[in-house]
Amino acid sequence: MEPARAIVCHDTHANGGWKMEDVSVRKPGDGELLVEIVASGVCHTDVLIGGIPGGAAPIAFYPRVLGHEGSGYVKAVGNGVTVAKVGDPVLLSFAFCNECAICKAGQYSHCNDFNALNFGGPYRDFHLASKDGEPEVGGQFFGQSSFANLSIVRQCSVVNAKDLVKNKKELQLFSPLGCGIQTGSGTVVNVAKATKDDVVLIMGLGGVGLSAIMGAKVQGCRTIIGVDRIESRLKFATELGATHVIDGSKLGDKTLVEAIREVADGIGSTIAIDTTGAPPLIKAGIEAIRNNGRYIQVGSAPFDFNVDFNMFSFMVAGKSIQGAIEGASYPAEYVPKMIQWYREGRFPIDKLIKFMPADDFEQALKEMHDGTTIKPVLCW
Amino acid sequence: MEPARAIVCHDTHANGGWKMEDVSVRKPGDGELLVEIVASGVCHTDVLIGGIPGGAAPIAFYPRVLGHEGSGYVKAVGNGVTVAKVGDPVLLSFAFCNECAICKAGQYSHCNDFNALNFGGPYRDFHLASKDGEPEVGGQFFGQSSFANLSIVRQCSVVNAKDLVKNKKELQLFSPLGCGIQTGSGTVVNVAKATKDDVVLIMGLGGVGLSAIMGAKVQGCRTIIGVDRIESRLKFATELGATHVIDGSKLGDKTLVEAIREVADGIGSTIAIDTTGAPPLIKAGIEAIRNNGRYIQVGSAPFDFNVDFNMFSFMVAGKSIQGAIEGASYPAEYVPKMIQWYREGRFPIDKLIKFMPADDFEQALKEMHDGTTIKPVLCW
Repeated sequence: MEPARAIVCHDTHANGGWKMEDVSVRKPGDGELLVEIVASGVCHTDVLIGGIPGGAAPIAFYPRVLGHEGSGYVKAVGNGVTVAKVGDPVLLSFAFCNECAICKAGQYSHCNDFNALNFGGPYRDFHLASKDGEPEVGGQFFGQSSFANLSIVRQCSVVNAKDLVKNKKELQLFSPLGCGIQTGSGTVVNVAKATKDDVVLIMGLGGVGLSAIMGAKVQGCRTIIGVDRIESRLKFATELGATHVIDGSKLGDKTLVEAIREVADGIGSTIAIDTTGAPPLIKAGIEAIRNNGRYIQVGSAPFDFNVDFNMFSFMVAGKSIQGAIEGASYPAEYVPKMIQWYREGRFPIDKLIKFMPADDFEQALKEMHDGTTIKPVLCW
Repeated sequence: MEPARAIVCHDTHANGGWKMEDVSVRKPGDGELLVEIVASGVCHTDVLIGGIPGGAAPIAFYPRVLGHEGSGYVKAVGNGVTVAKVGDPVLLSFAFCNECAICKAGQYSHCNDFNALNFGGPYRDFHLASKDGEPEVGGQFFGQSSFANLSIVRQCSVVNAKDLVKNKKELQLFSPLGCGIQTGSGTVVNVAKATKDDVVLIMGLGGVGLSAIMGAKVQGCRTIIGVDRIESRLKFATELGATHVIDGSKLGDKTLVEAIREVADGIGSTIAIDTTGAPPLIKAGIEAIRNNGRYIQVGSAPFDFNVDFNMFSFMVAGKSIQGAIEGASYPAEYVPKMIQWYREGRFPIDKLIKFMPADDFEQALKEMHDGTTIKPVLCW
């Protein structure tokens, strides 16, 4: 066991259950790496999962360590690890089995075992230093549990960054590429495969939504529409490439759909991406695409929410609705692509990020929620 | 006015409102052709539209002439017609405006004016011979109203068959290519773009469903599953290329979804196409696709049916639902392709078709409904 520090969730965040603590970490097993984490972005999915009361769902249990936008240096490797060697810098992403029919078809982010591998467990990797005995704290959240300065990581979650980063600072900067930024931009690039002819609507301008704006800009989409209710985010979206922004709190006598159509050739967008999961926005988004338009769900809707729409009209309009996880990215290919765009000055992720000491995680969560900070990155 | 004969719908078919009658047809106007119809396939959409009580929907009005799988010879042309000359054989398909953003994007079958151009009107082209005065019978159903031996056709609905057909018999044989056969096969070929790796589920094995089976066979899909409740159709599907068929009326203690998964690698199909519009099949089809699978709606659901599903699970599974009309085909390109496959012996449309004299249209409708005949073609 190696001594470490981690944000251990003993209960939901609302119940004050998240605590920075001294822990110890077990040795890496077959196909696992022990990674010295240098940074971990904070994402809404951490808050979502660490907000479900223990036992309320199979994926809700405590104690556990969350965090899934990690980067670091390999400290030790288990048997059968080929992706990286001790000392290599690594960027971490989601976990997948690499063996099911879906993975074999190259759709890793919809792996048949995605839920079990990324949210499930408890994979008990951490031991509370204050207690005796075996590890009792769940790890491997998204294959990595990177809210710790030392963590067990599955090989599938590792992108070797040896040839991608120049120094530790860059390794920290790139840590959120493996989830939020990949999810937002990848939805535009890999799922929608947007082109310069597209009119792209992006609802919700947090880390994922703003990354989608950057992705649409990279693709050269002729119209990029951002929707949010926080003025600073709308302004930021414009800086990143949005051609139009709509403040959902200031619609006046228009409906949101009318406001969208007005800036979308009068007939609606060709692509709509919802990063919020909010039912009214989902309904508006499906309505606001034009004939043959594609609506893509990226934000987590309430678990019990059923969407509904008229099937005949939907069919005649030739619309489509699709779900997408992680921007359908294969991190080993897509993460280097994003880094390349960043180096070319076309993907300014640094503008989204605020580095904060890991000890200030409560402040990071607060700033993410109130919109002051788009993407807090906890540094270890 | 030219003398002609037509199946005039004075009221719904259920009310006995369809009658073969002597009529006269007006002269073709700008961008219109007068076509001597030699054959017209019968499609469920004729029955659907000619089954709505007049005034119950904007697209329901009488008297009118239906029919939208026509073929024939050009008898006269109006100003600005460039697609064909007098005497040319033509195959007819749906109408589109060719000017809206959707048509300009090449998605003609989801044209912004699709409903108005194909179902709307009344475009009064026919005159009841027994009455005096101006034309009072609606034409241009799907741009053609081919349930007549002479009809006004919009230029957009015309595929010039001069270099495609050898004789009148072939012109009659190919008449249904412009709707049902194109819709079924085009959904597999143009919408799903199925490949040999795909496991394709096709629900409902009428003319559209069996054409989808043929399309999947042309694409070389490794598994092709047909679902119906009529034994003769299931047998026919097997002859046309289905690798598995499921009789929905003989599921025993299995659910339909379980029966589908059983023959779809245990996890579901990669593509599902519903040609029935029946709500229980729609729900089963959406469930029966695997992660990252695509569900495509082709059959008309009841006008007031709202489909609903859990958005979060749908998103995590990476599924998609899409509506498609006419197999997203551009008839001028896709009709020649189907004829080529037919000539190569890979697309045996002749097996689906039964030629019947137009006067026997009531018998044709009866045989289509009870499954005795897949695709009746009325000959004039």
